[in-house]
Amino acid sequence: MKMTRFAGWNCTVARSLDVIGEWWTMLIIREAFLGTRRFADFQANLGIARNVLTVRLRRLVERGILEKRRYQDRPPRAEYRLTAKGRDLLPVLVALMEWGDRWESLPAGPSVVLRDRATGAPVQPALTDRRSGRPIDTASVLAAPGPGADPALRARLTAWAKDCEARRSPAAGG
Amino acid sequence: MKMTRFAGWNCTVARSLDVIGEWWTMLIIREAFLGTRRFADFQANLGIARNVLTVRLRRLVERGILEKRRYQDRPPRAEYRLTAKGRDLLPVLVALMEWGDRWESLPAGPSVVLRDRATGAPVQPALTDRRSGRPIDTASVLAAPGPGADPALRARLTAWAKDCEARRSPAAGG
Repeated sequence: MKMTRFAGWNCTVARSLDVIGEWWTMLIIREAFLGTRRFADFQANLGIARNVLTVRLRRLVERGILEKRRYQDRPPRAEYRLTAKGRDLLPVLVALMEWGDRWESLPAGPSVVLRDRATGAPVQPALTDRRSGRPIDTASVLAAPGPGADPALRARLTAWAKDCEARRSPAAGG
Repeated sequence: MKMTRFAGWNCTVARSLDVIGEWWTMLIIREAFLGTRRFADFQANLGIARNVLTVRLRRLVERGILEKRRYQDRPPRAEYRLTAKGRDLLPVLVALMEWGDRWESLPAGPSVVLRDRATGAPVQPALTDRRSGRPIDTASVLAAPGPGADPALRARLTAWAKDCEARRSPAAGG
């Protein structure tokens, strides 16, 4: 199926989704984080059709998320490993898992829990501001236009910020 | 197009992707975070076909991510607002944006930057462990079977943890 391409959008969320947005791709990346490297193992663990898997893996290699390495010559065998760009998707995966554990949970509880490698203690992921250490939520942060914002986005974000401000302090409005 | 459903999987990443995984859905949620509420505005800002938008919005309401509220009776007009479940997707969106800004960046720089609402200071999002305050990365955390892991997943994660351990301290192996 031909899908809309977002690569040219003035938005890195759209550009990211163009690379990793659809279902199988993110689940292949999840498998890679769980140590899966070989075609046959991806196929067995995901129950995915060979042709779909072939296309998805090729695309992930092309986009620099997986690296294909020959580990045997006769017969030729390759494995797929996460690159730095791929490993950097961990926060996306963990954020998805966290949300799913909270809102689309399994009856018996989470199937996967994250543990500190050194101590074995359970890890409680939170998105925080590196500078202040405070959690990031809609009450604490505002989306503002950045240097790459086109005029339309800049106008929208500026209007939206004013609107938020007016709603927070109605006396100051008008 | 009929797509594979992941709702029954032993994995909350898959279950989450079943709700929010494909492109338009996440971009609709991004619009909602940026203050868009009305059908016509979603359509104009995303350049999405009416029928596609109708289906996606209905699904997001059904899954409890958006709430549809009538704000005018004659003619009838409704708006869509994020629920608590929807607002809780902010870390997923921010993690996607962060990754995109780093790896799929725009030539002129980020189009959107997050700022502290109170101080206006730029926010630097990081995924950290709520307990230790340390950043979460592949070197520091391990995925372990949780209470909801089925036997196959439990076996895989246990084998994988042993494999990781053996590679980190080869002398202790065997």
